[in-house]
Amino acid sequence: MLKVLKFGGTSVGTLDRIQNVANIIKKIKDEGHDVIAIVSAMSGETNKLIEYAQYYTKTPEPKEMDMLLSSGERVTSALLSIALNEMGYKTMSMSGREAGILTDSCHTKARIEQIDTTKMKKALNEGNTIIVAGFQGVTLDGSRVTTLGRGGSDLSAVAIAGAIKADVCEIYTDVDGIYTTDPRIEPKAKKLDKISYDEMLELASLGAKVLQNRSVEMAKKLNVNLVSRSSFTPDVEGTLITNEEEIMEKPIVSGIALDKNQIRVGMYGVIDKPGVASSIFTALADANINVDVIVQTRGLDGTTDLDFTIPTTDLEICKKIMTKFTEQSKNIDYNESICKVSIVGVGMKSNTGVASKAFTALANENINIRIISTSEIKISMIIDEKYAELAVRALHDAYELDK
Amino acid sequence: MLKVLKFGGTSVGTLDRIQNVANIIKKIKDEGHDVIAIVSAMSGETNKLIEYAQYYTKTPEPKEMDMLLSSGERVTSALLSIALNEMGYKTMSMSGREAGILTDSCHTKARIEQIDTTKMKKALNEGNTIIVAGFQGVTLDGSRVTTLGRGGSDLSAVAIAGAIKADVCEIYTDVDGIYTTDPRIEPKAKKLDKISYDEMLELASLGAKVLQNRSVEMAKKLNVNLVSRSSFTPDVEGTLITNEEEIMEKPIVSGIALDKNQIRVGMYGVIDKPGVASSIFTALADANINVDVIVQTRGLDGTTDLDFTIPTTDLEICKKIMTKFTEQSKNIDYNESICKVSIVGVGMKSNTGVASKAFTALANENINIRIISTSEIKISMIIDEKYAELAVRALHDAYELDK
Repeated sequence: MLKVLKFGGTSVGTLDRIQNVANIIKKIKDEGHDVIAIVSAMSGETNKLIEYAQYYTKTPEPKEMDMLLSSGERVTSALLSIALNEMGYKTMSMSGREAGILTDSCHTKARIEQIDTTKMKKALNEGNTIIVAGFQGVTLDGSRVTTLGRGGSDLSAVAIAGAIKADVCEIYTDVDGIYTTDPRIEPKAKKLDKISYDEMLELASLGAKVLQNRSVEMAKKLNVNLVSRSSFTPDVEGTLITNEEEIMEKPIVSGIALDKNQIRVGMYGVIDKPGVASSIFTALADANINVDVIVQTRGLDGTTDLDFTIPTTDLEICKKIMTKFTEQSKNIDYNESICKVSIVGVGMKSNTGVASKAFTALANENINIRIISTSEIKISMIIDEKYAELAVRALHDAYELDK
Repeated sequence: MLKVLKFGGTSVGTLDRIQNVANIIKKIKDEGHDVIAIVSAMSGETNKLIEYAQYYTKTPEPKEMDMLLSSGERVTSALLSIALNEMGYKTMSMSGREAGILTDSCHTKARIEQIDTTKMKKALNEGNTIIVAGFQGVTLDGSRVTTLGRGGSDLSAVAIAGAIKADVCEIYTDVDGIYTTDPRIEPKAKKLDKISYDEMLELASLGAKVLQNRSVEMAKKLNVNLVSRSSFTPDVEGTLITNEEEIMEKPIVSGIALDKNQIRVGMYGVIDKPGVASSIFTALADANINVDVIVQTRGLDGTTDLDFTIPTTDLEICKKIMTKFTEQSKNIDYNESICKVSIVGVGMKSNTGVASKAFTALANENINIRIISTSEIKISMIIDEKYAELAVRALHDAYELDK
């Protein structure tokens, strides 16, 4: 098999941990597999370099930041290579450019346009284990190094796995897989063997944060089998994220996600005229505010009430935009003491009664649901923040996810 | 004017010192010059990375060391660029590859084959100050980053200055120029305004070590005006190293050099047959031992005595080679308690009595000269090491170098 492995900053955070990663690769090589490993900078390095730049200015030029930040992954790729050489393995470390990762020229947050696998294929054919510096590429015309933004090494790995048609792309972090919910909230949470891309996307965006959404989306698009596992417990099988079709027994509910970083915006007595809601949400979208749950209900006197949630970080800019719409509504309030609990599962599509079980579970704990929003594979509920953990545990119990 | 400036590791050793370098560049830019700056890694960085590699092995693969070590200069070039941007200057940082530095593929000690100045010329035309990561290049086929060995950033600077026909190449260190002798030995030592390439080569190889010989040789070959000056006292003019023809008033003696890292090898009663001396020095050359002063004198019974000096570091390997020649000589001894004092000056060529003044000066101090060796612009004397500093001061005085 051809395996693409990605090791994050914590997994390569010290010289000793890089040796540990070399041992993991050794084991996989000795099982007869070909390996392309993608590595992040040693943990702390990227932040250190950002601090260096900020000694001079709060707004360094993006093209210079890319020159600066791309150095950390190069160091790790060389060190891991040296460790493997010493264990008797032939290796080739590669910068993003050498690995053929071609991007647009949007510095510090470039998008991968194309992967030229020529050099990697040649190196594999010559018996090399390839170690690629993650998080970076080069502009299509080859003129300048670029970086892919936070979490960019995951993208490097998934894109390479897709381009070179690897059998699997294993993402190593300090967490050994995807759990039915956050084990810090519900100790009975269980690790999932498999989960579909769509479920993972819902769980990630809802706060699970083991894998970044951009990488899961890319894995789905490129049909890459993604595995989330830990470099600290490499013998524990991780969680496979794959096509829904690959999952034979589709669970009704796969996991419970919690997102506390939401604010509920309530607009009351909005004039009920075509185009009003549209102009509000267009203004928010133009400001890059990611509006999540939206509910419109009939208010008094032919007006409507509009409820929606936004990320906490966007509160100030949202308030600024809302000043344009004060004439269209009687009152606007902001509630920070709410959270969003979501139930995710592909099996919902073909099962009834999933939602009512959730409502009952929360009602039994006297938790009032303020907004409900559903999609094909997800039910989200906005509740008071103080009930967050209680709600997660009640739902985890109700769907017997510990079984 | 187009000025190439090179800043060594100490000059860019901290964020504050990088700011100081930015101030130096600002001043030169504001005088109306174009600037290409070549930078080393922040002091300590390269050694840190070497230590990292040695955590895994004492003999890391050279091609991986190049990937590892080339990262330090990239960091400095980006940081200096960011500092200059903040001061209002348009910059373009460049890796060795981007600056068009093409080398052979002899990793960790590559030689520059060619400089493709296309990108640098374009960037200059667009009004940029260029900041090049020193010490590194890329193989001619573009496949792999290379490094140029210790002192490689000086080579990058001189080669770029030659290729782009810069008016001057200023090498900034923590020393403000070339002195008539080591000021730690003779406090009356004076900074030289000008010195020829050949004199500098003799002074450098004899221990002055402000500039590496490889860079001075390259500057001579490419006819680059080299200036040695300090980034800590940028207002002090440095020393210009240039063609002999550019120096109007040729001093008889420019400087006194001292080299304590020499061992005298004495072979007594060597069979006086053609080819014996030749076979000895061929064997030493094959082992890369840099034999310096050689003197042959007539011994007893038709034999000869052979005296020569080698660097202290080559003692063990020299002894090993000498075992092959025990039958050709009566006795071989090694004297570590010697040193070499040299008088250097282009004016010697057209002046007589230079040597006798030296011999008198040493005789007045009761210093016995064991070997004498002369070239067109140099007189070297091997004396007992305990007289080293005394001899330097006596010679400095005799030639009135403090005047």
